[in-house]
Amino acid sequence: MRDAYADQLDGIRNDLIAMSRLVRAAVARATEALLNGDALLAERVISDDAAIDRTREQIEENSFELLSLQNPVAGDLRMLIAALRMVSEFERMGDLSVHVAKIARLRVPEVAVPKELEPTISRMATIAEVMVGRVEHIIADRDVEAARELEEADEEMDRLRRSSFRELLGADWAHGVEPAIDIALLGRYYERIADHAVSIARRVVFLVTGETIPMLDA
Amino acid sequence: MRDAYADQLDGIRNDLIAMSRLVRAAVARATEALLNGDALLAERVISDDAAIDRTREQIEENSFELLSLQNPVAGDLRMLIAALRMVSEFERMGDLSVHVAKIARLRVPEVAVPKELEPTISRMATIAEVMVGRVEHIIADRDVEAARELEEADEEMDRLRRSSFRELLGADWAHGVEPAIDIALLGRYYERIADHAVSIARRVVFLVTGETIPMLDA
Repeated sequence: MRDAYADQLDGIRNDLIAMSRLVRAAVARATEALLNGDALLAERVISDDAAIDRTREQIEENSFELLSLQNPVAGDLRMLIAALRMVSEFERMGDLSVHVAKIARLRVPEVAVPKELEPTISRMATIAEVMVGRVEHIIADRDVEAARELEEADEEMDRLRRSSFRELLGADWAHGVEPAIDIALLGRYYERIADHAVSIARRVVFLVTGETIPMLDA
Repeated sequence: MRDAYADQLDGIRNDLIAMSRLVRAAVARATEALLNGDALLAERVISDDAAIDRTREQIEENSFELLSLQNPVAGDLRMLIAALRMVSEFERMGDLSVHVAKIARLRVPEVAVPKELEPTISRMATIAEVMVGRVEHIIADRDVEAARELEEADEEMDRLRRSSFRELLGADWAHGVEPAIDIALLGRYYERIADHAVSIARRVVFLVTGETIPMLDA
């Protein structure tokens, strides 16, 4: 009986890792759709989001079953509660990828991002994708050091967002209101994906060390 | 012992209601600061957010203690898990109010919202505030009917957001890029506050009826 229980706990961790892979693919594809004005790929991100939602439901059901039937305590209880929190964060990251894909789709056959902002948005997207990849590793290996390093990537994200605002509000901005709104919202979406990654990493740190890192005001 | 347990469960529900009151005040004050360009009130929303975060921590600790020591099952277990989810949503609503307050503060002594968009933004803010107020009642009275009605308020929010975009992108828009970005982000923040209210209401419906309402893709 105890072995089945341990297997179920491992299963939840594996499902979390699988969920983070789905989210990473969603972020990467949404960005590709955005930067290439690829409507088909944008559609795929939007329809694939259902798989992320299903994974969430499955992890929730399994966690709830374990909580109900096994009365886990201490570390296992914390892990299950953390898993329930993490799936909410991953699901939001999937939704945010859908938002990016929808902006991409709305502007086809144009590309939503003006040429001079492509490096900034592309870099924000890369950071977001890399952060999701690291979260996968952090969950799999309970890597506290990697979780701490994630904060630095998040700082670069904040700098890029401020720099994108300077471009939008500079005297040289010649693209008018619509692309400015797209860029402001895209910046917000990528920033939120990064925030969720940091938040998941902090839950892992707390699980492993019992140590709370003060939350960002995001 | 069983009575102390029931008291603790009631205590968590009361704390949730208290938290929703703090959030409602934050939304209302952030809006007032925004529409009047009131820097002091904006500062207050930003500093008061710590009280919302503390309430979250307190509810989390109490729920975790109950989960650890009392092994609640079935309905009580579901309620505690739901409470842990709800505090995350309330905390985000507080953060979103802080974002509104920060836009207000950034534009002082100007007002971020141009006159012709004041009715739209003001209406979005009112809907958000009313929705938070209803959530308080829905949690206190487990009012499933009121929870369902919240979806309609959320639809009005979506209509207002679309209408604000039409104004920003119309030929008459004479305010340039900066206020357009402010309005686009403000619309996003109020929309997210409303989404969180709907999400909390759905958790209550699920607790009471066991029925899942399909999630909005928000």
